[in-house]
Amino acid sequence: MAVSPFDHPFLSGLFGDKEIEALLGIDAEIDAMLQFEIALAEAEAEAGLIPAEAASAIAKALAGFKPDTAALRSGMARDGVAVPELVRQMREKVGAPHADRLHFGATSQDVIDTAFVLRLKPVLDLFDRRLAELTERFDQLDKRFGKNPLMGRTRMQAAIEISAGARIRSWRDPLVRHRARLEAVRPSLLTIQFGGAAGTLDKLGGKGEAIRAAMAQRLGLVDVPQWQSQRDGMAEFASFLSLLTGSLAKFGQDVALLAQAGDEIALSGGGSSSAMPHKQNPVAAETLVTLGRFNATQLSGMHHALIHEQERSGSAWSLEWLILPQMIAAAGSALRLAAALTGRIDRVGA
Amino acid sequence: MAVSPFDHPFLSGLFGDKEIEALLGIDAEIDAMLQFEIALAEAEAEAGLIPAEAASAIAKALAGFKPDTAALRSGMARDGVAVPELVRQMREKVGAPHADRLHFGATSQDVIDTAFVLRLKPVLDLFDRRLAELTERFDQLDKRFGKNPLMGRTRMQAAIEISAGARIRSWRDPLVRHRARLEAVRPSLLTIQFGGAAGTLDKLGGKGEAIRAAMAQRLGLVDVPQWQSQRDGMAEFASFLSLLTGSLAKFGQDVALLAQAGDEIALSGGGSSSAMPHKQNPVAAETLVTLGRFNATQLSGMHHALIHEQERSGSAWSLEWLILPQMIAAAGSALRLAAALTGRIDRVGA
Amino acid sequence: MAVSPFDHPFLSGLFGDKEIEALLGIDAEIDAMLQFEIALAEAEAEAGLIPAEAASAIAKALAGFKPDTAALRSGMARDGVAVPELVRQMREKVGAPHADRLHFGATSQDVIDTAFVLRLKPVLDLFDRRLAELTERFDQLDKRFGKNPLMGRTRMQAAIEISAGARIRSWRDPLVRHRARLEAVRPSLLTIQFGGAAGTLDKLGGKGEAIRAAMAQRLGLVDVPQWQSQRDGMAEFASFLSLLTGSLAKFGQDVALLAQAGDEIALSGGGSSSAMPHKQNPVAAETLVTLGRFNATQLSGMHHALIHEQERSGSAWSLEWLILPQMIAAAGSALRLAAALTGRIDRVGA
Amino acid sequence: MAVSPFDHPFLSGLFGDKEIEALLGIDAEIDAMLQFEIALAEAEAEAGLIPAEAASAIAKALAGFKPDTAALRSGMARDGVAVPELVRQMREKVGAPHADRLHFGATSQDVIDTAFVLRLKPVLDLFDRRLAELTERFDQLDKRFGKNPLMGRTRMQAAIEISAGARIRSWRDPLVRHRARLEAVRPSLLTIQFGGAAGTLDKLGGKGEAIRAAMAQRLGLVDVPQWQSQRDGMAEFASFLSLLTGSLAKFGQDVALLAQAGDEIALSGGGSSSAMPHKQNPVAAETLVTLGRFNATQLSGMHHALIHEQERSGSAWSLEWLILPQMIAAAGSALRLAAALTGRIDRVGA
Repeated sequence: MAVSPFDHPFLSGLFGDKEIEALLGIDAEIDAMLQFEIALAEAEAEAGLIPAEAASAIAKALAGFKPDTAALRSGMARDGVAVPELVRQMREKVGAPHADRLHFGATSQDVIDTAFVLRLKPVLDLFDRRLAELTERFDQLDKRFGKNPLMGRTRMQAAIEISAGARIRSWRDPLVRHRARLEAVRPSLLTIQFGGAAGTLDKLGGKGEAIRAAMAQRLGLVDVPQWQSQRDGMAEFASFLSLLTGSLAKFGQDVALLAQAGDEIALSGGGSSSAMPHKQNPVAAETLVTLGRFNATQLSGMHHALIHEQERSGSAWSLEWLILPQMIAAAGSALRLAAALTGRIDRVGA
Repeated sequence: MAVSPFDHPFLSGLFGDKEIEALLGIDAEIDAMLQFEIALAEAEAEAGLIPAEAASAIAKALAGFKPDTAALRSGMARDGVAVPELVRQMREKVGAPHADRLHFGATSQDVIDTAFVLRLKPVLDLFDRRLAELTERFDQLDKRFGKNPLMGRTRMQAAIEISAGARIRSWRDPLVRHRARLEAVRPSLLTIQFGGAAGTLDKLGGKGEAIRAAMAQRLGLVDVPQWQSQRDGMAEFASFLSLLTGSLAKFGQDVALLAQAGDEIALSGGGSSSAMPHKQNPVAAETLVTLGRFNATQLSGMHHALIHEQERSGSAWSLEWLILPQMIAAAGSALRLAAALTGRIDRVGA
Repeated sequence: MAVSPFDHPFLSGLFGDKEIEALLGIDAEIDAMLQFEIALAEAEAEAGLIPAEAASAIAKALAGFKPDTAALRSGMARDGVAVPELVRQMREKVGAPHADRLHFGATSQDVIDTAFVLRLKPVLDLFDRRLAELTERFDQLDKRFGKNPLMGRTRMQAAIEISAGARIRSWRDPLVRHRARLEAVRPSLLTIQFGGAAGTLDKLGGKGEAIRAAMAQRLGLVDVPQWQSQRDGMAEFASFLSLLTGSLAKFGQDVALLAQAGDEIALSGGGSSSAMPHKQNPVAAETLVTLGRFNATQLSGMHHALIHEQERSGSAWSLEWLILPQMIAAAGSALRLAAALTGRIDRVGA
Repeated sequence: MAVSPFDHPFLSGLFGDKEIEALLGIDAEIDAMLQFEIALAEAEAEAGLIPAEAASAIAKALAGFKPDTAALRSGMARDGVAVPELVRQMREKVGAPHADRLHFGATSQDVIDTAFVLRLKPVLDLFDRRLAELTERFDQLDKRFGKNPLMGRTRMQAAIEISAGARIRSWRDPLVRHRARLEAVRPSLLTIQFGGAAGTLDKLGGKGEAIRAAMAQRLGLVDVPQWQSQRDGMAEFASFLSLLTGSLAKFGQDVALLAQAGDEIALSGGGSSSAMPHKQNPVAAETLVTLGRFNATQLSGMHHALIHEQERSGSAWSLEWLILPQMIAAAGSALRLAAALTGRIDRVGA
């Protein structure tokens, strides 16, 4: 389908990002859910809650398991989550006598939240790498053109002459802070979610915390108490994404304004127009502004989604699904476009 | 891809809507763009601006034309719009000697905005039909259960007894107003966009307005001067969509609260849980709240997109693409889910 | 106090608007509440529900009544609305034997919503007048400078030459549509709210609708059934306000860009800088952008406030109070600043 | 004036907060601006840039200086900032021969941003204290009622029995994380802004950084390079405020739902109704939801304000003024109301 430009057959050429698509795609999603169920079974076997053979059978059955997506879709329509149907399919695959040991003591939210966090790990790594590269690109621009004079502009009017380097550093310096933020956010974001039906791990007979800790270790996540109705980690991550795209939007806006001003920047490889073939449009620069405003808009919804009622709010929770993956995609694309744009700057300043 | 739940392989089972998907999908999009180019050629031929044979050749070549989507995707990445590449492909198909007559005097925005408006027509018809049906469903509920007593609640506390009908009418009455709004919005929304490179139809030698009027008639749109940087029609439509989903969210919220309160409503066919097989979750009701908050969030971005700089803002314009189709999809799904939910109400009030 | 720049001792010099302040201020607010209570008593007397002498006593007692604002403030803190305390004060003023006839059958929301709508009437008139004047000012600019050549700019880059008139009309034409929207919104906005405790006018013994109609006539409002949990009229008005400020923000943005570009505009009377005394800042132009983005942000909250639970949501309702008056103030100031800015344009185009 | 309920004569009884009002009020604002100018003069004297007598004269003249607010208001209207007029008044007070030494090398933004940050210091201290107290209050509730059984609810439906303590900890635990966030945000938020006309401290002849460091020390702020167009610190602080109010809104929402459910909570001291004198409304609980949604809405605007063009964007910068103080006020009030609400909980769980 083609409702979102991130998913659209041709609009994704501008707005999409192949690496992000792979990390957020359906295969990665299913794989993370299977990892959850395997880690759960293994941790429960270790704790003596289910037989070791059950855990082995589950791990074996789920290796390379491909669910029936059409049935997941129907299950989603019926249950509001695809997990009950997925569990049904997985149990069918596991078969007697171990089928019922799968997903024991867990609830849909445990699977969905933890599987989402598992996919965030490589996303954070990718963003960190891209931030480092982009910072380096700005350093290179600063080295090459930093001493060029540039008209400083305040309130959109010529003020006094500054250096191109001063402008370049106003693009670069926030990225250094964003990398530090990315690092700081890891321990509170990359955490297991495991609470069972209503957050109390009621079926695990006092072994809940030990099992959770063991699962976290297996999955490479931080072990924390369930956070099913405490979404500050998610909302904070969304804020990070919007800080990032907002800073890159300032870079894009400035480049578009430099290009308009005439000879203050030399850009190569702009987009062409269907009406004016020789005009060069700073498409990447403009798109950075678009993505910054897109994420600034979305962020509000992620903060409304903090207001979870009781032990689990279906409506607040699923609002995250409609928003957060797109914010990640926007951040990924913004980093990609910003890097491309730096590569097209042949000169800044006179 | 799977970034947006509206497009997702299985999440779309809950959030998607087959009819909306068809109306907003890639086939409808390409078809509308071809319609634009044909109408343009025919109107220009009629005005004597291009030869009649050119218009015939164009119409013939574009009948059933299937563009190379991968190339459109690359063109999109390069130009920020797919139209230059699409025009190139279409001209290749038309061939000599008429190729250059295609898209004569038009610009990408003319194609994209008009093609979008063409697809809005059946969307409005669909929404109107669904609003009418849903209103009728509420009338039926009112007829069946309206006299049942119901505890009126203000500030989330029991107040005094009212009738179930009073509550049902608080869900129904806004829909009647929304239908009137839908009707009122048509003339300012279903309008042709045609301005050429910078909005002045500079290549059409004084025949611009006549050609625009002829195109509008051929396409079944209202003829108005170009509105390329005047996006109030789009932002107003977005407001309509959010009013609609907001009202349906109130219905959903109320149903979830009624269900929680105990015996004030009888619902059938709720969703099941992976942890508590016999619990019935009011998934459709919750999802209505989600979609209402989603559109309330998005609406802000559509109003930021009003701030178009100069004759065309690439960034403000493409912000619309990231937001408006999803708002339409959310409104379509909300209407579908609200209708389904009314069908599951077996009783309201005691 | 000084939390909002609209209320701030000196920031209001830029962001505030004397006429709007008077229309939204505390005196107008109290006055409108008193009008409601008088109209209620008179309509109830007419319907025979309370003695005619009670209505006279009430009207007499409330003429020029000044409530104890400090006590209202305490009442507000306690009750979440000031009306219970205001009613207590008014009844004390009316005294025996008619005191209890005051506010008979009404609830706080009836007073607050209707009193707000009463104050919207002159606000709409003011906006209509300002829109008409501003349109006229743009017409004058078009007459004086419309034929001047101006570089058309798309995607922030020079495109082809257009006329100054084409640009000016892109500022003016949306205003014409906004005036039509303002007119269209009156019947659904300027409506009485009267429902009693839970919207059913339960204490008025079958005479509720007649009393409501009589009150509406006395107050110069449209008579409609209660809309206490149906806030689409309010959210639609907020959308109108944001459409308006968004269009004016485009004007501001364009003026700032014209000023930056060099000699494409001649402006007089810009703001001065504390560091660069001779620099002229296009303060009004920039502030139009600020106000447009402010209202685009706020609008989202007004649409979240559509999701009223049950017969009255204290939280959704009071969210309107935090947002809507500021949106009105922003729209008023934007109209004022836009008019001032047109007066400082000494030339557009070369 | 009365546009914002935070400033309103009686609405502020519910929405306002005396301590926050004092910290954000006009007196504190002027005082912080004077501190900036004194620290600037002293640091410049120390660096030999202005005579020591000038610094003494400036410090002496500004001690207890009360500017003419009406003239500041006019200056604001003209210049978009009040600083040029304030500097004029301060220089008049200082008089010959030292007047021109005041504000030497600084620009309005230096004064305004730094003066704002100075006022944030006590705000952060207040929030930290209130967060600690509120956490303690939740601990007390947990101690008293934590073992009471409570119906766990997911997707707004009864799920399985949990303990009241589990629910209470879902309110408390985010606050512990918020305190850590508050601590973490200090070094990047409590920073001096000092850049001069276009951020390059052009008038300070190579002594800019030393002077900035000396000023920072005098003012008790962290010394960092100018951040005039890099607003990530402000946007991140806004995110913190919204995380905080979002978590408190979840508490409020839950209390309102508990109260509705019947006997799951015992509350004292709710608000009264003008129509139903004996009904108890959970006003504080509802208002927490309102404030959470208010800040979630506002946050979006603060992230749009990241997109500063060039060395200083008048429009992006002043958008912060319209939003951030209100977000702080909302957070302060939410903390106050949450504490009050905990004090009215006489029992949770059965």
